[in-house]
Amino acid sequence: MQWEQVLAHRASRMKASEIRELLKLLDQPDIISFAGGIPDPALFPKAAFAKALADAVEGEAADTALQYSVSEGYAPLRAWLAGEMGKMGVPCTADNILITSGSQQALDYLGKLFLSPGDTALVTWPTYLGALGAFNAYEPRFDQLTPNGNRSAAGYVADAAATGRVKFAYASVDFANPTGETLDLRARNGILNLAEDLDIAVIEDAAYQALRFEGEPLPPILALDCERSGGIEKTRTLYCGTFSKTLAPGLRVGWVCAARDVIQRLVLLKQASDLHSPTLNQMAVEQVARQGFDAQVEKIKKVYKMRRDYMLAALEQHMPDGVRWTRPDGGMFIWLDLPAHLDGAELLAQSLAHERVAFVPGGAFFADGSGANSLRLSFSRMDKVGIDAGIARLGNLLKRVLEG
Amino acid sequence: MQWEQVLAHRASRMKASEIRELLKLLDQPDIISFAGGIPDPALFPKAAFAKALADAVEGEAADTALQYSVSEGYAPLRAWLAGEMGKMGVPCTADNILITSGSQQALDYLGKLFLSPGDTALVTWPTYLGALGAFNAYEPRFDQLTPNGNRSAAGYVADAAATGRVKFAYASVDFANPTGETLDLRARNGILNLAEDLDIAVIEDAAYQALRFEGEPLPPILALDCERSGGIEKTRTLYCGTFSKTLAPGLRVGWVCAARDVIQRLVLLKQASDLHSPTLNQMAVEQVARQGFDAQVEKIKKVYKMRRDYMLAALEQHMPDGVRWTRPDGGMFIWLDLPAHLDGAELLAQSLAHERVAFVPGGAFFADGSGANSLRLSFSRMDKVGIDAGIARLGNLLKRVLEG
Repeated sequence: MQWEQVLAHRASRMKASEIRELLKLLDQPDIISFAGGIPDPALFPKAAFAKALADAVEGEAADTALQYSVSEGYAPLRAWLAGEMGKMGVPCTADNILITSGSQQALDYLGKLFLSPGDTALVTWPTYLGALGAFNAYEPRFDQLTPNGNRSAAGYVADAAATGRVKFAYASVDFANPTGETLDLRARNGILNLAEDLDIAVIEDAAYQALRFEGEPLPPILALDCERSGGIEKTRTLYCGTFSKTLAPGLRVGWVCAARDVIQRLVLLKQASDLHSPTLNQMAVEQVARQGFDAQVEKIKKVYKMRRDYMLAALEQHMPDGVRWTRPDGGMFIWLDLPAHLDGAELLAQSLAHERVAFVPGGAFFADGSGANSLRLSFSRMDKVGIDAGIARLGNLLKRVLEG
Repeated sequence: MQWEQVLAHRASRMKASEIRELLKLLDQPDIISFAGGIPDPALFPKAAFAKALADAVEGEAADTALQYSVSEGYAPLRAWLAGEMGKMGVPCTADNILITSGSQQALDYLGKLFLSPGDTALVTWPTYLGALGAFNAYEPRFDQLTPNGNRSAAGYVADAAATGRVKFAYASVDFANPTGETLDLRARNGILNLAEDLDIAVIEDAAYQALRFEGEPLPPILALDCERSGGIEKTRTLYCGTFSKTLAPGLRVGWVCAARDVIQRLVLLKQASDLHSPTLNQMAVEQVARQGFDAQVEKIKKVYKMRRDYMLAALEQHMPDGVRWTRPDGGMFIWLDLPAHLDGAELLAQSLAHERVAFVPGGAFFADGSGANSLRLSFSRMDKVGIDAGIARLGNLLKRVLEG
């Protein structure tokens, strides 16, 4: 069978990433990996999950936990989330919440809902790799979102006109993957201004929002939109949240919060795509979150903050001149800008071969293929010894490469 | 926000079904429902799941169960499934298996992989409603698959040419949803012949395959294809299985078995759409299946077989002349053909209002909008008393309507 002849057009855009293939090989114990943006399993609330899962399959609860459920998601979890959104300045009800299988699925559904081939998706340069992957399946054109607005709405429209229409602006707002940077209030309002001018949706990726180590929380774009619009039903912003970075990613529970009109459309997509997210997992997450979400978040923030500090100190100590990096207020990532002639992918190959240190080359995060001279480091899974040793080795490599 | 202006073309095809909305209201205790095709929760292997879940979040296993995982799925589950496929005449390895979130997600991914707007998907009239929903998101044209071949391959190609290409034939093979009918060996070979003539893929939906009450099992189309082609890597058939009808649907675990070449493409889609199915759920399903799949299947088949027999006897007793029905060898469904002037949707409204009996009008299962004079009954969740009472009331309604 020659599969190519029966594939959809989109399939030609979906290729295995060489970098992902390379990073798959990183299970060897002697590698120090700053590559994956994944939580430290030592911080999972295991006992709470063990209890919640046991409760969910005990007695009558099991009839619900193991059975088909509604596409919208488990009602008590949606209600709890609506309460949390309220605390962030987004007054809403459970009807404004759709449960998804991680926020990755939310991005897939939003691409599916909004994008026809040739339509334009606005994303930052760089942006979350998984968002590019999710949207890419719907064959859009990507254009550069510049939050502080060095482009006019008319300019975006003119550039999009040949192939489709501008449909949305996507932004990761707090301690973003991959840069670790946070959009300030001006940038958040700037995105909303642009979206109003273009009359498009805003997709707000808040995956890391809860992991703020210091400084005052900023209102989500959706909260600013609620204030401007006079309530969530009039907003244009879709807030995507997840429990992957706070409770545990392996259960795949995330959510979208938005106007009911668009939530109901997403429910139809969800129904046609996987009926619903696992009932059991939603019940377990609801119980663990209700009983101890804030305490769990405090616990992991303490650990990740220390690791960020270790990594910033190690970078200060070991990086040669000409290398710059971000200083995130939270999250899991630090972003390195290298001298323009360096290539992160080449560096990774050398680093794996000679230094046994892994990271993600920055170019992967750019929709236009630029940004080769950058890389992403994650500090979430490594202790002080690993961070110090890994950054020292990486610094040595960069010194050698820069000295030629 | 006027959402219409930013929606993808596909969104106009995805509307809330009036029937689904109607059936949502069926939680009232006085309704006898033959509507949903859902398992009886009394048959869930609850103790086995309680043990498996406890094991999965105990000690070191928890680090795996709660963590991110690979998109292909949990390796021991894939290995177990490869062994099961082998028993059905499909020699294969774990590399031929992708774990999906229920077989509904497999159908979504296959639509996504194969269909560009205007391409043709061949489906039976009637067919599984969820397959129509999943494929519909990718804007195909549907054409009628007639398993015993009363149309030529050239005819299909000619009809498809104006808009796209014929991409696949989809068929539910055993005790199909909605008709309860099984494709005989000739029909299975007929579909494979047609697929070879058209050089297209075959999507084999085997959701109910394990629930055979009587008669000899027939080889899956994929097994016939392996035999013809000389091994799975040369086949054109994608077998979609699920644990929803045997173990429990609420965990959302299904799989696709096919040639590695196409499995690897599906892995890329999975990665971009939800990263992976929940690790915990795959671990629990693997343990429960490995320790007692066959015994569980024997247990539920006994119960469902009795219920099928009750329903067939009740239909015999209560249905007026002019109503015909299928006699399934397994599964969950019986299909009623009504006199041509009757409309299943109108009957449902009357039945809910006056008889308090629910079912699914048959028209929903036809891609071309025909089939109004039919309806689907599920016998999986109702005991003898409920089946007798419900079919008697439905018979009374039909008698009244036919005497008009």
